[in-house]
Amino acid sequence: MAKFFNKVNQAISERVLSAEKTELEEEFKSYEKKTDATEEAITSAINKAEQYLQPNPTARAKFNVTQKFNKATSKYPQPEGELGDSMIKGGRAIGEDANFGQALVIVGEAEKQIAEARDALDAEVQSNFLIPLKEFLKKEIKDVNFHRKKLESRRLDFDYKRRRGHKGGQPDPKADEELRIAEQKFEESKELSWNGMQAILENEAEQVSQLNAFVQAQLAFHNTAVDVLTQLAQSLSDVVQSAASRPKSEPRYARTAPAEDTYGSSSYGGSSSYAAPASSASSGSKAYRALFDFEAENPGELTFREGDTIYVSGRLDENWLEGSCNGQSGIFPVQYIEYN
Amino acid sequence: MAKFFNKVNQAISERVLSAEKTELEEEFKSYEKKTDATEEAITSAINKAEQYLQPNPTARAKFNVTQKFNKATSKYPQPEGELGDSMIKGGRAIGEDANFGQALVIVGEAEKQIAEARDALDAEVQSNFLIPLKEFLKKEIKDVNFHRKKLESRRLDFDYKRRRGHKGGQPDPKADEELRIAEQKFEESKELSWNGMQAILENEAEQVSQLNAFVQAQLAFHNTAVDVLTQLAQSLSDVVQSAASRPKSEPRYARTAPAEDTYGSSSYGGSSSYAAPASSASSGSKAYRALFDFEAENPGELTFREGDTIYVSGRLDENWLEGSCNGQSGIFPVQYIEYN
Repeated sequence: MAKFFNKVNQAISERVLSAEKTELEEEFKSYEKKTDATEEAITSAINKAEQYLQPNPTARAKFNVTQKFNKATSKYPQPEGELGDSMIKGGRAIGEDANFGQALVIVGEAEKQIAEARDALDAEVQSNFLIPLKEFLKKEIKDVNFHRKKLESRRLDFDYKRRRGHKGGQPDPKADEELRIAEQKFEESKELSWNGMQAILENEAEQVSQLNAFVQAQLAFHNTAVDVLTQLAQSLSDVVQSAASRPKSEPRYARTAPAEDTYGSSSYGGSSSYAAPASSASSGSKAYRALFDFEAENPGELTFREGDTIYVSGRLDENWLEGSCNGQSGIFPVQYIEYN
Repeated sequence: MAKFFNKVNQAISERVLSAEKTELEEEFKSYEKKTDATEEAITSAINKAEQYLQPNPTARAKFNVTQKFNKATSKYPQPEGELGDSMIKGGRAIGEDANFGQALVIVGEAEKQIAEARDALDAEVQSNFLIPLKEFLKKEIKDVNFHRKKLESRRLDFDYKRRRGHKGGQPDPKADEELRIAEQKFEESKELSWNGMQAILENEAEQVSQLNAFVQAQLAFHNTAVDVLTQLAQSLSDVVQSAASRPKSEPRYARTAPAEDTYGSSSYGGSSSYAAPASSASSGSKAYRALFDFEAENPGELTFREGDTIYVSGRLDENWLEGSCNGQSGIFPVQYIEYN
């Protein structure tokens, strides 16, 4: 117990009374600063590299959980892989006889190859960058921090005993012996801390080569992506040409004679620049478009013309809505309008 | 009103009574299927491409919100950029006179260049892939769907009037005229739908070339990344060599004479393979390690030796903990232990 109160006594005396304190060498302090900076830099780099490899935090968390239960089959969903799957599915639904369908399938397959290269990047960076650096934090850095913590505690004990020794002025062999042991312990911890930090800082070659492994893995990934995409660009240029030179068939209907009204009478050419249905200006948040003419037959019903903008204000039942059009309001059948 | 109930009548009759129904041509139906498949494929590809460009959904949502308010300055945080910033900061804190500090800074700068290339990829894919495809959905596809919806409605009206016409058996010029107009309107909508779908499907060259623009942007991005990383690998190999050939200084303390106990007496060589502090086996979740010997001086206090494993069960006040060690339990000062 005495030991503990001695340290508290010394810590308070240092803070309140500016009691004398054994100072550590400047070189030691500089080692401490660099060791702390190394720990912080590595911790942050690990964190950001993990986000770089698996940028979707939700998918990353899910991956980490499933990996715990089933290491073999769990896989982080790479964005290129998801894109590739979607394109292949979409392309097949359109049909590979169509140029667009075919293009989607071949682009999708290339994206999946890039996703595989990204899986390889992930595995490589795990093995040669993340795992060794995590080990380094957990062992070398943690151990030296343990000794540094102990050093500070032993310094307090030593300084307390030095201060006490000066007080009396009378020779006290027991106190002298205690002081000698306290100093010895303090020196021991300082040596362990010093050597540990020196070893960490001088062995930076390991961390530099882990950083190099990370860069090499990235380079390999991007090289693979370039290879895959270069080949894809060649295949795709054939499809681009085939699509561009596709003969346009005559539109099935040359010109449509409008029935009864003129709305929607624009003809289609072979190009996609056919006219859009006329859209009325709308300002409300519930603007709908009239699909057909509606003539009020009973009081309270709202008359409108096809193409008119209707502002819906409520619903009567499953068939009838309430709303306004051209300054009039009333009810009308739900099927007569569509969302604008 | 009549028109609306006619359609409901016809729809119910078709479903319940299997009333006769004007069938659309097989070619028309095949166009419908392909148009729907095209819409679905494009919608899904847009969605997945956005996730590919900005894989973190939280950051993407935040980006989309800030972009609305301030288009110029908002930027999606690229994972390479975050990694680069962290490495540069960490490297500078360690100091660029150290090989590891220098390596972190140059790798960080390269990562930031890759992040810039990714920004360019994002902008390119937006302009030449996402925006045109979204426009295509919003205009061509939406318009043709409008006509298809109208066609179905007009078909119901037409079929209702055909059915009604057959019922009486008596000539009815007004009904005949109504039937003629209904058919004309039906045909008009069919023509508009048909021509629209034909235009969409025959203009696939546009979508194929947008897909090609996406592939070219990806290729350009990966090419830039390869260039940046190739140059980086060269600079980094100098640092790797410099770190590997760094002369190891003698450890400051050759061999430490243990003070009073033998714990922590392992010597440090120049390598990082120095011995870890002995760690006691622990099984509880609150296992701590004794930093110093503690001798009970009052009843209820717990005696232990430096290095012992202490299981903490509670806290008395800011200075005293309660726990057990080697089958005994009692209280002891908080500074005497550390988390194992």
